[in-house]
Amino acid sequence: YFFLHSNPPKTSPHSLLLPHLNGLVHVKNPYLESMDEDVLYHFSLGTKTHNLPVMFGDIKFICVGGSPNRMKAFAQLMHKELGLEGDGKDLKDICAGTDRYSMYKAGPVLSITHGMGVPSISIMLHELIKLLHHAKCRDVTIIRIGTPGGIDPGTVVITDIAVDSFFKAQFQQVILDNIVIRSTELDKDLVEELLNCSKEIHDFPTLTGHTMCTYDFYEGQGRLDGALCSFSNEKKLEYLKRAYDAGVRNIEMESTVFAAICRLCGLKAAVVCVALLNRLEGDQIKAPHEVLVEYQRRPQHLISIFIKKPNQHLWHYCSSLNFSKHR
Amino acid sequence: YFFLHSNPPKTSPHSLLLPHLNGLVHVKNPYLESMDEDVLYHFSLGTKTHNLPVMFGDIKFICVGGSPNRMKAFAQLMHKELGLEGDGKDLKDICAGTDRYSMYKAGPVLSITHGMGVPSISIMLHELIKLLHHAKCRDVTIIRIGTPGGIDPGTVVITDIAVDSFFKAQFQQVILDNIVIRSTELDKDLVEELLNCSKEIHDFPTLTGHTMCTYDFYEGQGRLDGALCSFSNEKKLEYLKRAYDAGVRNIEMESTVFAAICRLCGLKAAVVCVALLNRLEGDQIKAPHEVLVEYQRRPQHLISIFIKKPNQHLWHYCSSLNFSKHR
Repeated sequence: YFFLHSNPPKTSPHSLLLPHLNGLVHVKNPYLESMDEDVLYHFSLGTKTHNLPVMFGDIKFICVGGSPNRMKAFAQLMHKELGLEGDGKDLKDICAGTDRYSMYKAGPVLSITHGMGVPSISIMLHELIKLLHHAKCRDVTIIRIGTPGGIDPGTVVITDIAVDSFFKAQFQQVILDNIVIRSTELDKDLVEELLNCSKEIHDFPTLTGHTMCTYDFYEGQGRLDGALCSFSNEKKLEYLKRAYDAGVRNIEMESTVFAAICRLCGLKAAVVCVALLNRLEGDQIKAPHEVLVEYQRRPQHLISIFIKKPNQHLWHYCSSLNFSKHR
Repeated sequence: YFFLHSNPPKTSPHSLLLPHLNGLVHVKNPYLESMDEDVLYHFSLGTKTHNLPVMFGDIKFICVGGSPNRMKAFAQLMHKELGLEGDGKDLKDICAGTDRYSMYKAGPVLSITHGMGVPSISIMLHELIKLLHHAKCRDVTIIRIGTPGGIDPGTVVITDIAVDSFFKAQFQQVILDNIVIRSTELDKDLVEELLNCSKEIHDFPTLTGHTMCTYDFYEGQGRLDGALCSFSNEKKLEYLKRAYDAGVRNIEMESTVFAAICRLCGLKAAVVCVALLNRLEGDQIKAPHEVLVEYQRRPQHLISIFIKKPNQHLWHYCSSLNFSKHR
C-alpha cells in the first residue's frame, strides 16, 4: 500500500523495503527528480546554493542525537580519533544559517542534532536523506545516540527493536488523513557488530534490548513528577514492569520513526543509548553533572571504536586521505 | 476519568477544567507537593538550586516559539517596548545550563523556545507550568507564535481552535498505555482581545481560523518534497481543500497539545502564527530571507501591542516599577 499515486514506480513493493545493492540511499518520492531546486529548509542548505556532492559525498557514518553540545563533542572526538588535520575545537556548524538543527563534519563522519521527539527527528531525517541522495553518498551507516531513562544507570543499550507505548514493533505514520503502519526493525548485523565492539570496553556494561519510544516524557513514560499526573505509583510500576517483561530496556522519544524511515530508505541504522536513571527507582534526573557527562560519553566511545574498526569503506576513505596512522 | 489514583483530590471534575479564580496556575499532580526537590531538568533549573519566586514571581506574559533566535528577538523587542532599563541586547539565556531550551525575561514577559513538534513542546510545558507553580505566578497569559504553512503568506492567523490531522478539535494523550482524549479549545476572550489589537495594525492582515496540528512536516502535511511521498499532487490538494473547508487556515506541529495542557492547567492561552507560504501553490519555503524575517516580526508586533494594552496586571506591574513612560 505504500505508493498510492497514479504512476506507481517500477520497483516491486518488496524491494522498497530492502537496502539497495548499489549502496545509495533511496528517496521514495517520484516528485523529487522533477524539482528544479531542493531547499533543505531546516538545514539552511539547498541544491542550488550548495555543492552537496563536494560537501558531503565522502560521508560514511552519521551520528544523530538530541543535544547540540553532545553532537559537537562527538564530532570533536571523531576528529581527534581519526587523526584529522587541524584543531577539532574549531569545527563549525554547517547549519549555521538556521537555529533548528546543528551539523558538524569530521572526515567521513557527520554529527547532527535532531531535537526532541518523533516529529522533530522526522523533519531532520527527511532532509538528511535528501541531502545524502543529492550528494550521491554510498554505504552510509546511521546511529542515534541518546540519553533516556532505563533500568541500570550508565549501562549502554544497543536497540534490537524499537517498540511503541503498547510494546508493538511498529510506527504509525499519518499520511494526509490515513494511518499507515511501518516496521521498526533495525539492522541485525549492525547490532551484532556494535555488540562485538563493546567487548573491547571494560569500563561499562553494554547489552541489547528493546527500546520503547513515547510521544511524551511525563504522562507517556509514567512519570509522577509532571505538571499532570493522573495515575498512581502502583500503576506506573505495573506499566514499567510490563514493559520490562516485554523486553524493553530503555525508554526514549525518537527510535520508532528513526527505525521506520531509515529502513524504508535503505540506511543501515542503529540506536545506542545510555540510561541516565533507573525508572523503577525514580523519575527525576538528579545524578551529579560529572556523572551524567561521563555517562553521555559512553555511547560515543563505543561508536568511535566501531567507526575505527577496519572496514572497507573507511579503509578506502583513510587510504585515499593518507591518515591511517591512528588505525 | 482524569484522576485514576486511589486518593482522588477534593475538587470536582468540572472545576479541573476551568481557570482558577485565584489566578494561580494549577498543577494536576497530587505527588508534586510531597517532593523534597523538583529538578526542572530540561530548563536546568530547580527548587533547591534556584529561588524561583524571586526569579519568576512577576511573570504575567509568556511567549513561546520554535526558534531560539526568534524568541530572543521577541524578548529584546519587549525589553525595548516596555522601556526597561539596560541594554536589551545583553539579555542572557536563563536556561544557559542546558542546550534543550532557551529562556529570556524582559520584565513581566518570559520568552521560551519549545523546539519542533508535540513531544518537544509538551516537555517544555510540563516544566514551565511547574515553574509557574513553584514561583506562585498569578494571572499568566501564554501565547505561542509560529511560522507554519498556510494559505496567504504574511497573513497572521489567530487560532480559534486547534484541530488534529482529521480536523477534530481534540488531542490524543497516551498515558501509560491508555489513550485519553483532551479538548483543544483556546480562550475565546483572548482571541477577541488579540483580534481587537490587530485592528490597530494596517501593514498586514490578521484573521481567525482553525489551526491544524500534525506530527510530521512532510507526509503528514501533504508535502511532495520529502524523502518519502506516496500520494499524488491531486490527493494532496484534495486533502488541503478538505482542511480549508473544515475551517483550517494554517498547519503547524504544536497547537493541539499546547491548547490541551494550558486548558487543563488554567493558563489563558492563544496561538498566533504567520504563514510563510501558500500550501496550495507549493511546499518549499523559498521566499527571500528578508521577506521571511519581516513576516516573522508580524505576530511579535501584534503581541507587543496586546501586552502594552492597559490591563490591570501589567498596569500594576508597571506602576510598581515606575516605568509607565512608554505606555
